[in-house]
Amino acid sequence: MKSHRYCVIMCGGVGSRFWPYSREERPKQFIDFLGTGRTLLQMSYDRILHVVPKENIIVVTNSRYESLIRAQLPDILPSNILLEPARRNTAPCIAWAAYHIHALDPEASMIVAPSDHLITDERGFEGCVVRGFEFVESNDALLTIGISPTRPETGYGYIQVGDTVAHDINKVKTFTEKPSLDLAKVFLETGEFLWNAGIFLWKASTIINAFHLYVSDVANLFDKGADSFGTPRESAFIEENFAACPANSIDYAVMEKASNVYVECARFGWSDLGTWTSLYDNSPLTPDTANMSHGCELVALDSTRNIIAAPEGKLVVVQGLNDYIVADAGDVLLICPKSEEQRIRQVVNEVKTRYDGKYL
Amino acid sequence: MKSHRYCVIMCGGVGSRFWPYSREERPKQFIDFLGTGRTLLQMSYDRILHVVPKENIIVVTNSRYESLIRAQLPDILPSNILLEPARRNTAPCIAWAAYHIHALDPEASMIVAPSDHLITDERGFEGCVVRGFEFVESNDALLTIGISPTRPETGYGYIQVGDTVAHDINKVKTFTEKPSLDLAKVFLETGEFLWNAGIFLWKASTIINAFHLYVSDVANLFDKGADSFGTPRESAFIEENFAACPANSIDYAVMEKASNVYVECARFGWSDLGTWTSLYDNSPLTPDTANMSHGCELVALDSTRNIIAAPEGKLVVVQGLNDYIVADAGDVLLICPKSEEQRIRQVVNEVKTRYDGKYL
Repeated sequence: MKSHRYCVIMCGGVGSRFWPYSREERPKQFIDFLGTGRTLLQMSYDRILHVVPKENIIVVTNSRYESLIRAQLPDILPSNILLEPARRNTAPCIAWAAYHIHALDPEASMIVAPSDHLITDERGFEGCVVRGFEFVESNDALLTIGISPTRPETGYGYIQVGDTVAHDINKVKTFTEKPSLDLAKVFLETGEFLWNAGIFLWKASTIINAFHLYVSDVANLFDKGADSFGTPRESAFIEENFAACPANSIDYAVMEKASNVYVECARFGWSDLGTWTSLYDNSPLTPDTANMSHGCELVALDSTRNIIAAPEGKLVVVQGLNDYIVADAGDVLLICPKSEEQRIRQVVNEVKTRYDGKYL
Repeated sequence: MKSHRYCVIMCGGVGSRFWPYSREERPKQFIDFLGTGRTLLQMSYDRILHVVPKENIIVVTNSRYESLIRAQLPDILPSNILLEPARRNTAPCIAWAAYHIHALDPEASMIVAPSDHLITDERGFEGCVVRGFEFVESNDALLTIGISPTRPETGYGYIQVGDTVAHDINKVKTFTEKPSLDLAKVFLETGEFLWNAGIFLWKASTIINAFHLYVSDVANLFDKGADSFGTPRESAFIEENFAACPANSIDYAVMEKASNVYVECARFGWSDLGTWTSLYDNSPLTPDTANMSHGCELVALDSTRNIIAAPEGKLVVVQGLNDYIVADAGDVLLICPKSEEQRIRQVVNEVKTRYDGKYL
């Protein structure tokens, strides 16, 4: 029996906060960041394979990453790789995927998931996704996955939970993107808030309706190509029209405006692995000295709480260094205090200017 | 006319304080440390070539460095490379060279010079060496080169200057190896002390006499081989007997005991390049931030007074780092505060123990 459940893995990000490991030519989703032998993209694919058949798994990415996708996911159907001709954030990406899937299967439901997050309880993830599919298949609902916060993180979006409508599923009261530390602390204390994991479930028809209601320019643009989706003409249509979509995130464009928005409280371990310190928080540390080493051999003398990443087999010796990120990516070495990792983006811009695109 | 002047370049050291750049397989004398296109050994050879004909230049080194010597000094006669079968510090090394040269030329005078020091005024060096040769050729003298101290350095040996006997040449009153900081300050203030540059001049016969007087076990051992020096049997004799010499420095073994010891005050710029900070002191720095970069591209943000060495073409980005040594030698990365560079030797021992000789 053909499954009506689809998955869209979003795989076009550049992960610049993880520079110099995450590079324009090979962003972090394509890296075996946890040293498990599988890249973050491969882990995302493996995880969803228990819930969605592989012929229904679609990857949306930037054109330049096509060969990386084919190399890392050899089982995926070539027609299931959607290549964006331009970066336009998540809203246009999701609109395209929804139109594409809806053309193939008007009854389709779909999960949209990032390719570069860490999920530590795969069984918990499966159960959550199955419950989510069941909910959106029987309700006209836009469902997002929420994570119980464990710290007053200021880098995430927060979801205020409203009335319960099903097991672990509630109406959404409010969204708050990247709160101040004081506000994040209040959110944590009240117990009413969840982190927005950036994982969404809905019927293809439901999200297409939402685009018509809240992002009509994008919906009108894709409506023009209605008869090309799922046909050999689709890529020509996209090539010609996609770049005209204004860049916007699905959160701002749809979720914060729609009234039929729900959140499912996830019970699995999750991190967006957005920064070096989030990798540190999710990695095993050396006893006593709490250093994290990635790839390399580490000798740490009078050195604690560092993040040390270097190529396999390289020896890194740190003496008298505390709370730093040391990231040696072969042709680039970055040394930066953990407390200043938000400056990595500026550093990348500085390098871009000085070296005319080299080292990015 | 055949010259009676010889040069012995000592080239067997391992330079462990410069780890991980200086390695057992390629110690610092074999590295282009100053980025001039010539290694320290090649610079030492080039320098002496103005004073001593190349057929009289002898290199004493450890057997394992023979191919490096031949590659870096292709002009040197193979018979002028003396290969020590074991490391025994400078006294046995100099004894062998003196017996070797004396067998070739009983009238020989010789300069003994390290291969890994920096001398910045080559003309000044030449004049100094020529005056030194003239002095030892007409006097039964052991002459050492002294440098006017510019700071209360505790890592050097100091020479107290006695009566003047010739232009810029004085009797030596005392030697003091590696004084305390307080003592070094007093030495600097009195103006009576010079740094011991480890460069010596004497007739071969004079130093052989001194070995008989002060290191008779070594002299007796080499006397046994008297008829083999300068013949094809020399290397077999050395192979069999050299390792029996007790390890000792020429300073402790001879210079501190002999009565015919003189010092010539040098007028040239000199550094033993013994440590990363001595390289820093002799290198051009970035304006304002006073960082030193070696080999690599450097982007330094809120970072000052660092020593940054990495392979050619590598980009090093430091953010919020001050007064550190960052030395990336390809397979090893060392990060250590400049103020703790004396711990590098301990670090090397730690690495030796943990990795069974790898990375040295």
